[in-house]
Amino acid sequence: MEKKRILTGDRPTGKLHLGHYVGSLVNRIKLQERFDCYFIIADLHTLTTKPEKEHIMYLRENIREMVLDYLACGINPSLSTIYLQSAVPAIYEMNLIFEMLISINRLTGLPSIKEMAKNAHLAEESVPFGLIGYPVLQTADILMPRAHVVPVGKDNEAHIELARDIARRFNQYYGEVFPLPEAMLSEVPTLVGTDNKGKMSKSAGNCIFLSDDAKTVDKKVRGMYTDPNRVHAHIPGQVANNPVFTYHDIFNKDKAEVAELKARYEAGSVGDVEVKESLAKSLNLFLDPIREKRKQLEGEKGLVEEVIYKGTLKMQEVAEKTVEEMRSAMGLTGGWKKISRIARDRMEKAKKELLAS
Amino acid sequence: MEKKRILTGDRPTGKLHLGHYVGSLVNRIKLQERFDCYFIIADLHTLTTKPEKEHIMYLRENIREMVLDYLACGINPSLSTIYLQSAVPAIYEMNLIFEMLISINRLTGLPSIKEMAKNAHLAEESVPFGLIGYPVLQTADILMPRAHVVPVGKDNEAHIELARDIARRFNQYYGEVFPLPEAMLSEVPTLVGTDNKGKMSKSAGNCIFLSDDAKTVDKKVRGMYTDPNRVHAHIPGQVANNPVFTYHDIFNKDKAEVAELKARYEAGSVGDVEVKESLAKSLNLFLDPIREKRKQLEGEKGLVEEVIYKGTLKMQEVAEKTVEEMRSAMGLTGGWKKISRIARDRMEKAKKELLAS
Repeated sequence: MEKKRILTGDRPTGKLHLGHYVGSLVNRIKLQERFDCYFIIADLHTLTTKPEKEHIMYLRENIREMVLDYLACGINPSLSTIYLQSAVPAIYEMNLIFEMLISINRLTGLPSIKEMAKNAHLAEESVPFGLIGYPVLQTADILMPRAHVVPVGKDNEAHIELARDIARRFNQYYGEVFPLPEAMLSEVPTLVGTDNKGKMSKSAGNCIFLSDDAKTVDKKVRGMYTDPNRVHAHIPGQVANNPVFTYHDIFNKDKAEVAELKARYEAGSVGDVEVKESLAKSLNLFLDPIREKRKQLEGEKGLVEEVIYKGTLKMQEVAEKTVEEMRSAMGLTGGWKKISRIARDRMEKAKKELLAS
Repeated sequence: MEKKRILTGDRPTGKLHLGHYVGSLVNRIKLQERFDCYFIIADLHTLTTKPEKEHIMYLRENIREMVLDYLACGINPSLSTIYLQSAVPAIYEMNLIFEMLISINRLTGLPSIKEMAKNAHLAEESVPFGLIGYPVLQTADILMPRAHVVPVGKDNEAHIELARDIARRFNQYYGEVFPLPEAMLSEVPTLVGTDNKGKMSKSAGNCIFLSDDAKTVDKKVRGMYTDPNRVHAHIPGQVANNPVFTYHDIFNKDKAEVAELKARYEAGSVGDVEVKESLAKSLNLFLDPIREKRKQLEGEKGLVEEVIYKGTLKMQEVAEKTVEEMRSAMGLTGGWKKISRIARDRMEKAKKELLAS
């Protein structure tokens, strides 16, 4: 029995951090065993909020860093397909066709787009048309390998509903070409940043990167936000919503130690330094094999590129099949095919007559 | 000195009528001598209001009929490029990129789009996203051959302004790639329909087609709207806004006869039958060479297809050049090129090593 297909991925924003690991990577590493996974490097999506050249010029390096992190964490390219969105021409064609099959109101009604515009500091009057169309482009991503399942968080569930609507409309107009993709709602846990101000994100500068070396991790953990009321080690502290303990819960494998540190923290019998040193040690234990694998991969010249190249060639093939079925269902390019055939016949005949005379 | 380039064309709605001739064809026939003309058969544009299969299935025949009319009227394929929009892959890519460079507000603010939605009987809540994007797709059409000039009517001037905005923004972000297209405002005279209810249009059923035979023309002219107060030939009639005289003014070459008929009509000394018989004769005189040419073209099997085929191949070449320059200015696909090169080098090396061992 064929495995079901999954489509998911990231904008290439560069090195990945612990938030990515917790939010999606750990889940993907599990999924790739049971599913046929397509991991998109969504470079075209970056244009929806950052079309300027000064952003584009970093994409190449960002792609490399991101895929290094994928592989270092355990994404396995012999199981999964990692591909570059802009290098699959079918994306453009599918996007345009799908734009005809969804109303503008349906798109402007999505709160997620307003959120994206806000995060990109775009004034309402300058929101690009392409940003409104972002979920349509995403639909093309999803329907290109005819994915059955898309892992998303609650806040992106509406996008999958929209992709289903477009697939349904296409099938209804032109015949069954696309399976209706399903959202696989995972908790998609967001990890709080080291400053405890919102989630970990590169732009907020509150990240621990998967590729940070041990010393950097030590330093970042030392500077982490903890209970601000605790000016002395003997003051009882708060464990809940304290990022240091949030990280302990996730990354410290010694659960007994975590329980003990929590109890002592709440009793005012442990210093912040000890709690943080223990966390830094745990994080470095967690990151060591990832860093080691990354170093090894970095040393193999051209390996990352080969992974992207092969994945993209595979997706090009898959996409060409999809788009051919799409075209044939719509009948739009049938005209061109017939025109070409008739024209070539005529030209062939004229040539023969010329030669015969 | 190189000729300046013009982009213009039509949605393939089938046989053309006198309204098309007066509104655009006569102008194009003149333009093709002075300009390098690209005539687009805009089949993708039909999807913005009519994406359903039952419309797509008629496109093939509509394209053939329309191009037959082009050629019969004097569009000369050895001077001009007639091409099929959907058969030039670059259109999809250019469209997506341009969608990032214009705000949604700029598009929803265009009255022409509301007009199109109304004409297509689309309720506000079901206006497709692709219809809002229509002027962006049109921009891709215009910038594809890097057209300098676009002949438009007053009501479409805003679309050219928008195309200029997109071209300007592109050049500003990525470097000078596109000349700013200019609107060539022609009067674009609209011809009133035979029923005097709005302009001649296929959907209104008030057309005289360029391919109508003489008998059909006679019959359609006999049924034309004239001054309704004139129940007898001796009642003075109104010449202004009387479609029969409007057509006389345009198509009857015997200006003395037209003047005389007008005078007698206003004096109540000529019957409608005589006025109409004279008009039918003039129209048939005008249409005779077009019909004859059309018949001859229809007889040459594959000729129309060859014209479209060659024009489209030429546009594919022109478009590929444009899109390559666009990509290189943006630097978006530079990453993929580099990835491919590095990957192929690695794979080549591995192969050699395997053979050597």
